[in-house]
Amino acid sequence: MTLTLHAYWRSSASYRVRIALNLKGLPYAVVPVNLVREGGEHRRDDYLARNPQGLVPTLEVDGVPLTQSLAILEWLEEEHPLPPLLPRDPISRARARSFALAIACEVSPLSNLMVREYLDRVLKLDAAAQQAWHAYWIGRGLAACEAMIAGDNGPFCFGEAPTIADCVLVPQLYNARRFGIDLAGFPALLRAEAAMLALPAVQRAAPEAQPDAA
Amino acid sequence: MTLTLHAYWRSSASYRVRIALNLKGLPYAVVPVNLVREGGEHRRDDYLARNPQGLVPTLEVDGVPLTQSLAILEWLEEEHPLPPLLPRDPISRARARSFALAIACEVSPLSNLMVREYLDRVLKLDAAAQQAWHAYWIGRGLAACEAMIAGDNGPFCFGEAPTIADCVLVPQLYNARRFGIDLAGFPALLRAEAAMLALPAVQRAAPEAQPDAA
Repeated sequence: MTLTLHAYWRSSASYRVRIALNLKGLPYAVVPVNLVREGGEHRRDDYLARNPQGLVPTLEVDGVPLTQSLAILEWLEEEHPLPPLLPRDPISRARARSFALAIACEVSPLSNLMVREYLDRVLKLDAAAQQAWHAYWIGRGLAACEAMIAGDNGPFCFGEAPTIADCVLVPQLYNARRFGIDLAGFPALLRAEAAMLALPAVQRAAPEAQPDAA
Repeated sequence: MTLTLHAYWRSSASYRVRIALNLKGLPYAVVPVNLVREGGEHRRDDYLARNPQGLVPTLEVDGVPLTQSLAILEWLEEEHPLPPLLPRDPISRARARSFALAIACEVSPLSNLMVREYLDRVLKLDAAAQQAWHAYWIGRGLAACEAMIAGDNGPFCFGEAPTIADCVLVPQLYNARRFGIDLAGFPALLRAEAAMLALPAVQRAAPEAQPDAA
């Protein structure tokens, strides 16, 4: 099975999939998709044929394109179950998925490149208003995520091993720092992040470790 | 197993879960959560203890709260696999999940109540600018979803039976009409919606069929 990941180094969703692929020890080729050069390679017809949303990442499996990072993570879990990225019992699986979705649905979509362009070019918000927008949604989302795992012992979000929750958390905290968000109020999230960043598989997934890092 | 759904009649995410519960023929009690009365029942401490994001729905399973509609749908699929709401083969499962996530991550979050309040109260956008915002994100998202299933034969999003994609599509089209979006350009989506709305289980999940419908 040949895996080809179409990704952008600094995209949170691309980073999630790299972490999962690396944790499962799967080899894959990377095709960089430059979102910012000349209007964006993600808007070209050949890319849209693979990914009609024009988003990264796309994982091609023997040439068949899979889109949406969380759908890709579920596919990986079904086809390459070891090591697992979901807990064993159904309630714990639901909690890990809920944490991942809380970031993927209520945090990331409000600060992604498309939204930043709209705030800037259509609403013409000044820099302070744009920063306030990002700080509001990221802060609110991370506070909920902190509450979701504050009662757990760690070291990862949900116990002794990484799950999809951790795969989504690490890129979100990376993104939060880009926006200058103070993370001191989220000790459980920082604990899980530290456990993840200690793993070589996660280190190799870092944006700065990618071939297209600028 | 006792199932209690904390929901708001017009919330898209609540509607998704009602459809799935009804399709699987599972009995459940509904506890209405009024999002608009007196600052919102979802902001009360007793509700936040169940759902730290302060969002609907929450599905309590023998008193254990599960949050995030797509995590609830995956839990339902694992615990009550029949009738299935995911296709059998892994690539088709990934496609159905990707379609559901394309709506749940890139459309719904940009028009939900929290965002509408921010556009209104913080950014103080006028009615036309608010409408343009919703039309942009809903139109863009639905166009991508249309492309994702335009090559399929239906009648549902992915074949002869409903999947999680259809459970997410129906509430999104209901929501799009609230915002006055012209849906004529999305024939494949309308075809799948019609197949869904012909099912009594889906009809019983409609917002207007709920006890708290205003």
